[in-house]
Amino acid sequence: MSDSVRQDAKTPQVVLGDEEIFEAHVGGKLSVELKVPLDTQRALSIAYTPGVAQASRAIAADQTLAARYTWANRLVAVVSDGSAVLGLGDIGPAAALPVMEGKCALIKAFGGLDSIPIVLDTKDPDEIVETLVRLRPSFGAVNLEDISAPRCFEIERRVIEALDCPVMHDDQHGTAIVVLAALLGATKVLDRDMASLRVVISGVGAAGVACANILLAAGISDITVVDTRGILHPGRHGLTRVKAELAERTNPDGLTGGMVEALNGADMFLGVSGGVVPEDLVATMAPDGIVLALSNPDPEIHPDVAAKYASVVATGRSDFPNQINNVLAFPGVFRGALDAGARRITEKMKVAAAEAIFSVASDDLAPDRIVPSPLDPRVGPAVASAVAAAAEI
Amino acid sequence: MSDSVRQDAKTPQVVLGDEEIFEAHVGGKLSVELKVPLDTQRALSIAYTPGVAQASRAIAADQTLAARYTWANRLVAVVSDGSAVLGLGDIGPAAALPVMEGKCALIKAFGGLDSIPIVLDTKDPDEIVETLVRLRPSFGAVNLEDISAPRCFEIERRVIEALDCPVMHDDQHGTAIVVLAALLGATKVLDRDMASLRVVISGVGAAGVACANILLAAGISDITVVDTRGILHPGRHGLTRVKAELAERTNPDGLTGGMVEALNGADMFLGVSGGVVPEDLVATMAPDGIVLALSNPDPEIHPDVAAKYASVVATGRSDFPNQINNVLAFPGVFRGALDAGARRITEKMKVAAAEAIFSVASDDLAPDRIVPSPLDPRVGPAVASAVAAAAEI
Repeated sequence: MSDSVRQDAKTPQVVLGDEEIFEAHVGGKLSVELKVPLDTQRALSIAYTPGVAQASRAIAADQTLAARYTWANRLVAVVSDGSAVLGLGDIGPAAALPVMEGKCALIKAFGGLDSIPIVLDTKDPDEIVETLVRLRPSFGAVNLEDISAPRCFEIERRVIEALDCPVMHDDQHGTAIVVLAALLGATKVLDRDMASLRVVISGVGAAGVACANILLAAGISDITVVDTRGILHPGRHGLTRVKAELAERTNPDGLTGGMVEALNGADMFLGVSGGVVPEDLVATMAPDGIVLALSNPDPEIHPDVAAKYASVVATGRSDFPNQINNVLAFPGVFRGALDAGARRITEKMKVAAAEAIFSVASDDLAPDRIVPSPLDPRVGPAVASAVAAAAEI
Repeated sequence: MSDSVRQDAKTPQVVLGDEEIFEAHVGGKLSVELKVPLDTQRALSIAYTPGVAQASRAIAADQTLAARYTWANRLVAVVSDGSAVLGLGDIGPAAALPVMEGKCALIKAFGGLDSIPIVLDTKDPDEIVETLVRLRPSFGAVNLEDISAPRCFEIERRVIEALDCPVMHDDQHGTAIVVLAALLGATKVLDRDMASLRVVISGVGAAGVACANILLAAGISDITVVDTRGILHPGRHGLTRVKAELAERTNPDGLTGGMVEALNGADMFLGVSGGVVPEDLVATMAPDGIVLALSNPDPEIHPDVAAKYASVVATGRSDFPNQINNVLAFPGVFRGALDAGARRITEKMKVAAAEAIFSVASDDLAPDRIVPSPLDPRVGPAVASAVAAAAEI
């Protein structure tokens, strides 16, 4: 990756220099503040001894009051082991921390929730689960982040089982929610029936599996999943448990081979792989198609190339139209789950989140505007409200 | 304890009602804020993807840069298992959280440092140490808090050994630092030689042991320690390891018996026990003495009673003069240790902290003003500066 990052293609381009980025990170991006200043004896006596004893005594007598008299019940722990950070891979917990701080900043800015970054110096699933169980009274929800596949599937499942609070691995479900929102937008713009699309997903990591699941749940039956070794099908040797399970539920035509075979005649390409798809393969897609090439910073198909063959093109980048960014989902998902007092983030809540994102964009849909801007202040509250409503039913 | 708490005796008395205290605790006392708002595409691209990748990549290449580009290096984790909270005992982690939030608020208000409360759903020393080792990349210092004795001694020792960052159990050393500061003030006011004092310490919990140690280190040789079963002496049966070790280093006259024998002719009483000392025993102390009766909310000796026999009287309460409050110490100790990049909080740094607290009070010493007010804004910076200087030598 180059030492500067282009953005804002739609307006005159701005170059973010290294110096500006590093300067913004000095000392970190978060601070912990007091809700009420401690500048009088009275304030000190309320917030600390002797007054605080009243709050502690009340909680000791009735544990449910912790939700009322501490911040924990509304606090999101953003937890990572640093094993799959952005496109950088296994860079470890210390190097993951700037990303987790950024995540916490987004949860505050767009979800209005406090959160703390927790980076763990272990990659052992048993130890990660055990650590979060021990920390449980300190927070009210867990956003798992940047944990490598296939460990992330087991870890998320086990943390959900072990904790009586909302837990979500954002790389899986945040991405899936926004992809579904984008697809709702794209099919509306194109006036196409979503369920009849032939979809190809490139990548079977955290995002690929979750996207396949949410698209299947949304009624799309013809999904073909491709990894670096080719198309997933039940007869392929050496599949992991997760891939074998996915092979059973996808690829209804029993395709074999690779991207050549998969993409031929496909209506939609979803890239969450980091690979590259050559232009001659893109050219074999069916007309009036959709390309979501989400790898960052290098989309699987450059949007200028994709636009020659597809009617709607989206990427993960801020310097092209239709940015598919998880920030559209996770702040509102956690806010809605906590507002509703939900103990789980269900599939129904995820679909509700996607529909809410779509509904914000729907006033003003266009081929280059299938999702709202990540900065649209309506999105977080709309998602929170929809998620909370879906939790209550 | 009554359902309201008196305070501000020196000014017209104020009664803190339960309602006011509970209202101040709704939703907790802390919030996590962004240092820079995320309201433009440019800000989002710097703080999150793609810009944040630069900070993560830099740290991955050089782990020491985590100190520069994250908040962790300056972040204090305030950690408790809830086993010895205030005078309330083993009320558990959820009920301890309001105290830890208050502690974090004080660290910000008086030390200028960010901190996060971590309450653990385990009391097992192995698990506590292990958990903090796993969390290590998330913070830069550990304030252990409200952990019961004698577990606190082992846990502090092992956490110090396991982590390469400043660690302090405040109930031990914060108290000891402020007691030493008070004693420096009291002996100055009384024009007495500190080393020649005959001192009685009531209580051999976290605070009692640490106070005995710091007073021994300060040159006081005649210290007698009393617990609920009487005077510590090497011949006493059934002593814990910590008490047996303390018995070897105190009680130079080989006293046996209880508070009656200990207090007879003593120059100073230090109460960190929660017990009660009858007035007739107080009357047997030597003239011109010092009483530090620190139990909260009920001092071992009521200050009005103590004042009949002693020349300087202090308590832990905010509604009497000479409040001995740890907040005079811990915010500045952590700030100084982190400013200096210290990996340990040494005895020398603790003594420097006590001397700095004393020096702030020394302009204006009086029998009812042997320590500064907990709200004195000069204390935190003076302690930080002295601790940092002591760390560097």
